[in-house]
Amino acid sequence: MSVLVECGVIRTRPKDALAARLVEIFDGITEILARHRPDAIAVESVFYSRNVRTTVTLGHARGVILLAGQQAGARIHEYPPAEIKKAICGTGAASKEQVQFMVARLLRLKHPPSPADAADGVAAALTCLMTARIDALAGRR
Amino acid sequence: MSVLVECGVIRTRPKDALAARLVEIFDGITEILARHRPDAIAVESVFYSRNVRTTVTLGHARGVILLAGQQAGARIHEYPPAEIKKAICGTGAASKEQVQFMVARLLRLKHPPSPADAADGVAAALTCLMTARIDALAGRR
Repeated sequence: MSVLVECGVIRTRPKDALAARLVEIFDGITEILARHRPDAIAVESVFYSRNVRTTVTLGHARGVILLAGQQAGARIHEYPPAEIKKAICGTGAASKEQVQFMVARLLRLKHPPSPADAADGVAAALTCLMTARIDALAGRR
Repeated sequence: MSVLVECGVIRTRPKDALAARLVEIFDGITEILARHRPDAIAVESVFYSRNVRTTVTLGHARGVILLAGQQAGARIHEYPPAEIKKAICGTGAASKEQVQFMVARLLRLKHPPSPADAADGVAAALTCLMTARIDALAGRR
């Protein structure tokens, strides 16, 4: 059975310069990786929002997260958001609330992870674990 | 008069995983910053290409470059590509060759920086210097 050790979100101030915010994200992720030393990291693949500017800013953030993961020597797995929702809720169109509910159920938590973004992160990690198990059962690695 | 100390490009292998390429870019920039300890860094602002995927991948690379710059304590200046071309060549529609030619002229180089991407980097740095001078003359800082 999978056990949730820690989950959360890193928040930065929108008023701060992008470079300063990237340092905060990088330092936050690096600290968590040093603390838990994971073998693998699951990251949502790029979400192409209707607003290209948002997608590109997100790309900057993903860049420093992938950097931190690679520096820590972890295997990096990427999953499209719809694939994560499908793995956890059975449908790629699941709502934030459905993801929170299913994450809580699968991990036998008393309360769903909050905020919803933290639950999304846990859902990505669970997708990674489930995929690894299916691969193991099928004799793949 | 401005003097060119070093210019160049960091190339990564397109076949490598994005995270590995980001580490190469980050390490390369960090090494250069440690060697020259610049007060300021000039970076092209995001170029929205017709291919959103390219723009987003570029966002990842910019993310680790801005991170390296901020970690090194340098002031980061961003300029749209057209503004750089206008400052150096007089027109925002200048060709790669025109930028190479003008960069060589302004810095009294025997040969224009090559490849053209290296000249673009030098052009961004020159734009930063010219803007700083104009601000100083106008009593701004």
